[in-house]
Amino acid sequence: MNKLFIIKIGGNVLDDPASLTKFLADFAAIKEPKILVHGGGKLATKTGELLGIKANMVNGRRITDAPTLNLVTMVYGGLVNKQLVARLQQLGCNALGVTGADGNLLKATKRPVGEIDYGFVGDIHPAGVNSTLLYFLLQQNTVPVFASLTHADGVMLNTNADTIASVLAIALSKHFDVRLIFCFEKKGVLRNIHDENSVIRTLTTNLYHELLMQGALADGILPKLENAFAAIRSGVREVLIGDATHLTSNTGQETIGTLVIK
Amino acid sequence: MNKLFIIKIGGNVLDDPASLTKFLADFAAIKEPKILVHGGGKLATKTGELLGIKANMVNGRRITDAPTLNLVTMVYGGLVNKQLVARLQQLGCNALGVTGADGNLLKATKRPVGEIDYGFVGDIHPAGVNSTLLYFLLQQNTVPVFASLTHADGVMLNTNADTIASVLAIALSKHFDVRLIFCFEKKGVLRNIHDENSVIRTLTTNLYHELLMQGALADGILPKLENAFAAIRSGVREVLIGDATHLTSNTGQETIGTLVIK
Repeated sequence: MNKLFIIKIGGNVLDDPASLTKFLADFAAIKEPKILVHGGGKLATKTGELLGIKANMVNGRRITDAPTLNLVTMVYGGLVNKQLVARLQQLGCNALGVTGADGNLLKATKRPVGEIDYGFVGDIHPAGVNSTLLYFLLQQNTVPVFASLTHADGVMLNTNADTIASVLAIALSKHFDVRLIFCFEKKGVLRNIHDENSVIRTLTTNLYHELLMQGALADGILPKLENAFAAIRSGVREVLIGDATHLTSNTGQETIGTLVIK
Repeated sequence: MNKLFIIKIGGNVLDDPASLTKFLADFAAIKEPKILVHGGGKLATKTGELLGIKANMVNGRRITDAPTLNLVTMVYGGLVNKQLVARLQQLGCNALGVTGADGNLLKATKRPVGEIDYGFVGDIHPAGVNSTLLYFLLQQNTVPVFASLTHADGVMLNTNADTIASVLAIALSKHFDVRLIFCFEKKGVLRNIHDENSVIRTLTTNLYHELLMQGALADGILPKLENAFAAIRSGVREVLIGDATHLTSNTGQETIGTLVIK
């Protein structure tokens, strides 16, 4: 099977011009098929303030009400997505900006109202991925660039970018040997949270269980690792957790971040 | 050759909820390959006012300065485009929202600074259309939905939606028997501007020249007709100028608007 890289970037890359420039150059230089998934960074907050759209919080959770949905559709799906696409085009990378609504690439279910009504939030599943169209787009040497938006029943929905990257990775692992890469603010998963150089280079399911038993992992990394091992259990070959500045190494043989494998 | 409809809608459809709902249902029901091209309507002006972005006019011409470019990228490329796509998806039409930057579908040249600096405006030519990818997308039964934006040298550019529709029609006339449809506020080109029922049903080049000599055409329609005949001269089979509410007839044999042919 051919290799496919699915790479998720967050605000720490999008909000820093120098980091973003380096990241885009490194991303464009990847020779294998690739997909980029992004959120919106601080631009959404800033634009929301200008538009008088206040963050709507319930029990400490952010709610996607109708004005917030319009805001993220504009900023993530419009401004950020198209700026990334235009810059990648200049770098010779045939980027194609999409949301889950486009080509029905990622159909969601609006989150049911429970104790909290999260509003216009989409829950997704690998069965909702239009992998036929994605596969064809990749074969045409286009590079899908996903804004973290999905759709259901005629409306756009807000969906977590990490989750979109995972679900795409699982769905496409039938066609490709997928390495899913989560870029975050550290070099990788640390054995000692006070030592930036204590990166765990290879994390197997067995080692993960051992470290969990020892209580050796920082709380902050646990959801990311649960996510990563869920992908591995569902057919994704490798998940790499690392720093965006190490993308070139992390898409090669000699990875610098944490490579999560079965 | 297969038929292809390229349909351009403007503010008069986008800004009226009932017209838009009818239009989208009629558009989704077209069985042949099709492409939609749209601008932004009043939403851009309204959002711009909220964001404190003032229309920048020089000698009565609107200038696309940097804040205006961000505004149209957000509103046309994000909000309007994705709302149209989500609604078409619900109607069973596999819409794929794009700008000219996406998949390098429409590469422009930034308008050179002459007497006026129009700012971030893209001039386009049929040679800048990635017809290979467009052809492939149409073969996959996806329906490209173009926001009126293009790109060059790493930045997005603002481009007139009528011009985008024409240029796409010309480029795709090598692969398809294209009918380019401009939806506007009248039933068609009128022989008598005071009589809404004086629509010229078929307008050939010969009749056009005759009417021009007679001074029988309203000034407002002349740029549209120049545009239409330019497309016809460049290989587009038919241009239909009509009202969005007559889309079903105007995509069939018994057209209600003005059918422009060689």
